[in-house]
Amino acid sequence: MDSQLQSYLSEHRDRHLAELIEFVRIPSISASTEHKPDMLKAAEWLADALRRAGLEHVEVLSTAGHPVVYGDWLHAPGQPTALIYGHYDVQPADPLEQWETPPFEPVIRDGKLYGRGATDDKAQLYTHVKTVEAYLNTIGTLPVNVKFCIEGEEEIASPSLPAFLEAQAERLKADAIVISDGPMHDEGAPSICYGLRGLCGFQLDIQGAKNDLHSGLYGGGIANPATALVQLLASMRGDDGHIAIEGFYDGVNELSEAERAAFRELALDDAKQAKELAVPELTGEVGFSFLERTTARPTLEINGIYGGYQGEGLKPIVPSTAGAKISCRLVDHQDPDQIMKRIEAHIKKHKPAGVTVKVQQTHRGKPFYISPEHPYIQAAAKAYEDGFGKEPVYIRSGGSIPIVEVFSRVLGAPVVMMDFGLPGENMHAPNEHFHLDNFDRGIATLCRYWQELQSSGK
Amino acid sequence: MDSQLQSYLSEHRDRHLAELIEFVRIPSISASTEHKPDMLKAAEWLADALRRAGLEHVEVLSTAGHPVVYGDWLHAPGQPTALIYGHYDVQPADPLEQWETPPFEPVIRDGKLYGRGATDDKAQLYTHVKTVEAYLNTIGTLPVNVKFCIEGEEEIASPSLPAFLEAQAERLKADAIVISDGPMHDEGAPSICYGLRGLCGFQLDIQGAKNDLHSGLYGGGIANPATALVQLLASMRGDDGHIAIEGFYDGVNELSEAERAAFRELALDDAKQAKELAVPELTGEVGFSFLERTTARPTLEINGIYGGYQGEGLKPIVPSTAGAKISCRLVDHQDPDQIMKRIEAHIKKHKPAGVTVKVQQTHRGKPFYISPEHPYIQAAAKAYEDGFGKEPVYIRSGGSIPIVEVFSRVLGAPVVMMDFGLPGENMHAPNEHFHLDNFDRGIATLCRYWQELQSSGK
Repeated sequence: MDSQLQSYLSEHRDRHLAELIEFVRIPSISASTEHKPDMLKAAEWLADALRRAGLEHVEVLSTAGHPVVYGDWLHAPGQPTALIYGHYDVQPADPLEQWETPPFEPVIRDGKLYGRGATDDKAQLYTHVKTVEAYLNTIGTLPVNVKFCIEGEEEIASPSLPAFLEAQAERLKADAIVISDGPMHDEGAPSICYGLRGLCGFQLDIQGAKNDLHSGLYGGGIANPATALVQLLASMRGDDGHIAIEGFYDGVNELSEAERAAFRELALDDAKQAKELAVPELTGEVGFSFLERTTARPTLEINGIYGGYQGEGLKPIVPSTAGAKISCRLVDHQDPDQIMKRIEAHIKKHKPAGVTVKVQQTHRGKPFYISPEHPYIQAAAKAYEDGFGKEPVYIRSGGSIPIVEVFSRVLGAPVVMMDFGLPGENMHAPNEHFHLDNFDRGIATLCRYWQELQSSGK
Repeated sequence: MDSQLQSYLSEHRDRHLAELIEFVRIPSISASTEHKPDMLKAAEWLADALRRAGLEHVEVLSTAGHPVVYGDWLHAPGQPTALIYGHYDVQPADPLEQWETPPFEPVIRDGKLYGRGATDDKAQLYTHVKTVEAYLNTIGTLPVNVKFCIEGEEEIASPSLPAFLEAQAERLKADAIVISDGPMHDEGAPSICYGLRGLCGFQLDIQGAKNDLHSGLYGGGIANPATALVQLLASMRGDDGHIAIEGFYDGVNELSEAERAAFRELALDDAKQAKELAVPELTGEVGFSFLERTTARPTLEINGIYGGYQGEGLKPIVPSTAGAKISCRLVDHQDPDQIMKRIEAHIKKHKPAGVTVKVQQTHRGKPFYISPEHPYIQAAAKAYEDGFGKEPVYIRSGGSIPIVEVFSRVLGAPVVMMDFGLPGENMHAPNEHFHLDNFDRGIATLCRYWQELQSSGK
């Protein structure tokens, strides 16, 4: 890294971390309506941070939902323009009792910043802001043009962003879209993600009698919605872990021997991982490795299940309702709307008697893929080698950033995912944290990336 | 009914109802530790009510849990002694939003008293108190000796009562045990219950990873406890509604043709019931009628199921835990502890990989049966004919009052169940209520019952 940049970043590191802590302190939970004022506060805070970094045309742009924060620096004529996407919203923090320190009172312990949103996505997003600041406050210019487009609805599947992108396509026009919003392959193993799983999320609501009934007087006499739910959900999956919904695997590619060999190369130690997660073993779809199951195979996961009495003691009732929140991760050519249709057909066919079933699709996102050979991906590989001192590996991610596919489609530009998080940083879980040495390495990588992008040309 | 009693009851009816409202106003929820002060308040209130009715030796007796309220009147030497059992505790009131008026602000609408505990068991219990008061304030004496033993843990399956009964066997000695704590067969169809189902309640806890995990990064890679729960619960039941646990039906009698004929005689209209409950149809174990399924057949019902995210929106996680509260109703010679062992064996055999499963038995109660030919039962039949102007039908109840079997065993006396509630009064459900004309008819029935019991002799 340029020595000017390096000394600037060292000198200002404490202030940068103090700012980041301020950012993580804002409980910007997009899923919860009661946090709406915090969402606005986070957007305004971020807009100020962009202005302080030297970005121009900074605005908090309203959408149908939470606003988007925009800012740009466009003084590199003839050079490529990078659109940096990220999000200032965070996941809900529950179960609160499992946090060692409160989720919105960020603290640094052992070189890690703990707090909800630390790795997903506030610290990763902030590496971009501080990279711009370092360039403009030292060299006075950036090697490329940059635009920031930071949304507040990523954790609720970006309902407003597609329309926003369509409407603002001119303003957002770019040659590359750069996103830092996920984990690298492993500690000390920087990686470039060239594939993401899609998402089909839905809610299943089962209605029995008009109210809860005494399980002594009615038990056995009428259908129990919780039992109906259990039967319906059990019917969706075979004992071998295959999803038992007709047509579910249509559009899923067979893994080639070359791909499987690459997966074996990257494989982590199953026993070690099981121990870390405190589970007896890693299990799932028969015939596939952990890495294959979590990145290259589709899934159907129960995210939440509920019905009847959950309090202290026992309440002997036949519950009147039961339900589940479910999400499918999709790969290759699976389409979320088509998958939803197939699930609806399955439910229709397997609906237990005596209850009514309602299905509502809540989330949809297509899978994404970019060739690892793309010049902007190769530029990122060089930048990582500089920032982390190590050649990155090429991976697919099991997560879904549906908006990645939308960006690539609506703006017609390649999406480069440059992740600085780590697995085990508890994204979406209690005690979320971010390794701060990757804050420094991330900025170093980005400093180099803008240079490489300039060299790659438009 | 004796005209003196009749005019006394008419004259004091408003005051009696006002007292009952006061009683229902106390939120005596035994399942919830935060309501412990209300439990004590209800016990003291009831003790005062017994004293005001003219009972003697009234005491609030402590137990290992909530106290028992005792009182007696023993001035009928040579006559039978009846022990009146009831309970002053009530079920939790949730889901609160489904109540038309708040559960602990009792109101009278259309001749019905609405409030948690109205029918289960406060109004029914109070008929006994007011019967004693009417006798002592008019005739000055009762036809038989009476003892009240009113507990505060019926809704949590009476954990302390068995030991209490053993310890107080001498004080509680009686020739008959009389209980009014359930519904009659139907409106205008008084009934005598000669059988109750037993209970085996347990909680199932499934543990996956040490915390919730991102369903994109881990989904498909490890076992999902909610999915494991669903598979395990689904394995317990066949599509025909039979419980698929090995040995579950051991000790269940085949229904004789005579019994089945009696059940057909009593049968209500299935379509009408389904409409009232707002379900598409009444379903359950194949080959048995609604009445058979709810009284003479054992069940395994999910009372509550939970795991993962239940809030607004979607939280794409693999939950770390999932669980269920389950209760089996037992009949004939089924034994709750043996059933529990069989369920444990089933769980051991069907436990899905990758999770740990914990089972904890929380409730046990044996089934109960008394011959409809018993003289004290026949005495009750005559009393009902007087109080309700109609001969009662003989029924089995699907509910469990495990303590009934314990009373009968520990005190060695027949148990006579004289119910004054009605089906559809929402026991254990929102908008619980009690038909107040059955308050009057109940007292009239009891006034006659004490005379009939005297005639039956010891």
